[in-house]
Amino acid sequence: MTQARFGYLTPENASLFTDLYELRMMQAYYNQGHNPEATFSLFFRDLPPGRGYMLTAGLEQAVHHIENRSFGDQALEYLAEQGFDEGFLSHLADLEFTGEVRALPEGTPVFANEPMLEVTAPILQGQLLETAMINQIGYETLIATKAARMRDVIDRHGDDQRLVDFGSRRSHGTDAGIKAARAAYVGGFDGTSNVAAGEAFGIPTSGTMAHSWVQSFAAEREAFETFVAEHGEDAILLIDTYDTVEGAKLAAEVAAEMDVDVRGVRLDSGDLPALSKEVAAVVPELDQYISSGVDEYAITDFFDRGGVGVGFGPGTALVTSTDAPKVEGVYKLVAVERDGETRPTMKLSKGKVTYPGAKSVRRLEDEGTYTGDVVGLRGEDLPGEELLETVIEDGERVDELPDLEEIRERAGEKRRKLPEAHREIEDPEAYEVQISDGLQATTDDLRERLERRTNA
Amino acid sequence: MTQARFGYLTPENASLFTDLYELRMMQAYYNQGHNPEATFSLFFRDLPPGRGYMLTAGLEQAVHHIENRSFGDQALEYLAEQGFDEGFLSHLADLEFTGEVRALPEGTPVFANEPMLEVTAPILQGQLLETAMINQIGYETLIATKAARMRDVIDRHGDDQRLVDFGSRRSHGTDAGIKAARAAYVGGFDGTSNVAAGEAFGIPTSGTMAHSWVQSFAAEREAFETFVAEHGEDAILLIDTYDTVEGAKLAAEVAAEMDVDVRGVRLDSGDLPALSKEVAAVVPELDQYISSGVDEYAITDFFDRGGVGVGFGPGTALVTSTDAPKVEGVYKLVAVERDGETRPTMKLSKGKVTYPGAKSVRRLEDEGTYTGDVVGLRGEDLPGEELLETVIEDGERVDELPDLEEIRERAGEKRRKLPEAHREIEDPEAYEVQISDGLQATTDDLRERLERRTNA
Repeated sequence: MTQARFGYLTPENASLFTDLYELRMMQAYYNQGHNPEATFSLFFRDLPPGRGYMLTAGLEQAVHHIENRSFGDQALEYLAEQGFDEGFLSHLADLEFTGEVRALPEGTPVFANEPMLEVTAPILQGQLLETAMINQIGYETLIATKAARMRDVIDRHGDDQRLVDFGSRRSHGTDAGIKAARAAYVGGFDGTSNVAAGEAFGIPTSGTMAHSWVQSFAAEREAFETFVAEHGEDAILLIDTYDTVEGAKLAAEVAAEMDVDVRGVRLDSGDLPALSKEVAAVVPELDQYISSGVDEYAITDFFDRGGVGVGFGPGTALVTSTDAPKVEGVYKLVAVERDGETRPTMKLSKGKVTYPGAKSVRRLEDEGTYTGDVVGLRGEDLPGEELLETVIEDGERVDELPDLEEIRERAGEKRRKLPEAHREIEDPEAYEVQISDGLQATTDDLRERLERRTNA
Repeated sequence: MTQARFGYLTPENASLFTDLYELRMMQAYYNQGHNPEATFSLFFRDLPPGRGYMLTAGLEQAVHHIENRSFGDQALEYLAEQGFDEGFLSHLADLEFTGEVRALPEGTPVFANEPMLEVTAPILQGQLLETAMINQIGYETLIATKAARMRDVIDRHGDDQRLVDFGSRRSHGTDAGIKAARAAYVGGFDGTSNVAAGEAFGIPTSGTMAHSWVQSFAAEREAFETFVAEHGEDAILLIDTYDTVEGAKLAAEVAAEMDVDVRGVRLDSGDLPALSKEVAAVVPELDQYISSGVDEYAITDFFDRGGVGVGFGPGTALVTSTDAPKVEGVYKLVAVERDGETRPTMKLSKGKVTYPGAKSVRRLEDEGTYTGDVVGLRGEDLPGEELLETVIEDGERVDELPDLEEIRERAGEKRRKLPEAHREIEDPEAYEVQISDGLQATTDDLRERLERRTNA
């Protein structure tokens, strides 16, 4: 039980990444012979504070989870020890996903109450996926959004500065570090410092040097010379170990003496906008990379104060989305088969109402600008472009998933179609999402019937 | 590159969970023949806002990472593609950790500037560990602390209520979901809903039912009856799908009619303290479990308002530590061998000063109560109990790591030795951490020398 494990999840036990109640419900569905076709819908009830939009990411990981879910021997043994029935466990051992998955493509701006994923399958299959689907899509969407906000600020105020994820050390666990790199890339970043993410997803990696490099030598000069001797024009020298401006001068001297056109310098502490201007005044030939406390607010301040830099390395604030560290994705039963008919369903829990039925999400566009969305019933006659795409049908993938470069490019295009008012980093204007007449009527009708029954 | 992967890290590629700069520095250390013995120290410069203490966790994962780090063929191939030298890569292929690791045991209250982990090894080996060590220890410590705060509130105002982690769906990735369960258990939780964490660490698991269970039946009564038929006395019925108080009455009726002493009911929406009192008034025989929005502040409010419940299921707020989602662990070079001598080192970066030298952390105790700590130089004559324990020596584990139950028990004992003033959830009193005379003198002396040199 305490053997060394790294990611904890392997294809053989990935299905254990679920809440116990899913398995307890599943056993009951199975033993009680209650396994109707059901549709679950994954969406956000609200956007996190200060967010005018979210940018979807993580669908690839979600689809891999669905396709590879299986219960290996070790998983089944554990569940047997936990008291699950032999009959149910045999069923689990052979369980395959036979249903349908519709989803928003990664890199799509999304708003409250819009399904990002809809799963239609026998309820036992759909139920199992709840925990994993929310987890896989929720976190990457949170981080793609955080990244996109920084890119939004640069689009508006900057000069196409590079954005590189430096957050791996402060992410919530290792999976988050790797996924943050991917999600940030979807959101418009240029690379990551995380080597595992580079290997897993082909994301460009970047790296400079740490203070420990400089300190490990008797003098800063020796540290710079040794690094340039090794990395040549690819060297970025960290200049704030002792004194930023003196460090900058030394970097320029070393580069000149060694006749190497180094890539630049990194500033990692102090009043960064002010220091970057001082450095630019003294050694204008050096490109400056800015790290430490970088997020969309700091970048805005940096530009407002005339800071000079060609790139930023956001870390902790990116990977933990510090100003809004959670987005509460839910995965709700919206339709269920009863007496041979598909029936919309909802709960009435206070403050947590869910629109019933399988959905359609439509986006209206006018001359390359998004003007509003409509959420309606699947199959309802609605205006605009349908955003939900069928990804899995009868348990089989419909198409190849797009590659990451394609996702990233499309994400940028879609993000820029969203009016700037919705992309402000503070007090963004709310984007209009209409509930269709059909969906509203279904909701009102069902609510009335449920309230009547509850009060009966 | 885009094949399905779950945890992303395997023992063969776990060492890729690092920032590229570590590997670039390592290649330079290697090729430039610069590999002095070095000590790195992992600590927090500051505690997160509102925290009077942190509770360490994650050492087991950190040690597993050190012991199992290796670069497999796939990792080496990737690094070769990225331009790393063949000579350096052969060195990596054979790299083993030969150094020393000292650490605070898991479940120890820790404060700013106190090393939680010190690694002494050839700098090339120590450098590689930076990203992973901060990540492994930082997140679990953040969550053990969040969990301990909820247990603190119950210790003071409650009645030994059960605390179960319900956060897996909202954790930042899957690794975080599993580690949050472990860290919360260290911090005083009783269990988790995460089945993978149960399997990986032997943590007790709990689960009830979801709204989807209730909605999937034509009537709430049928849903309750079917679940009780399956799970008997172990059933906890979710009662807020349509109307909480009506649901409670129905749960009691079903239990009575079926003559099953069900475990209780779960409330998941609305004004929970008020509803729990209404439910207790109507069906006092039912134990109530409270979920939705639970954290230390909500638990305090629940008790203040006379809420009735035997257990809480904190989720998102626990696993993302929402009110303080980051803790900025750093891993800094504090000593390095030069000319055959171990020399303390530090940087002068503004606002980010590090105390130099390998450390000793001492805790003073008076009649079972902690009264203050002293951070000094390793080997310095200091009062109090030494908290840093040697975990790895000459690359070999010194002892078995303690098991999780033992860690959890000791964590509770230590936490309760900390005066309540430091365990307040708002505006806690600062605990006194003294810097020893020896450490202060070394720091002042080194700073003076460095400033003199920088200004020369």
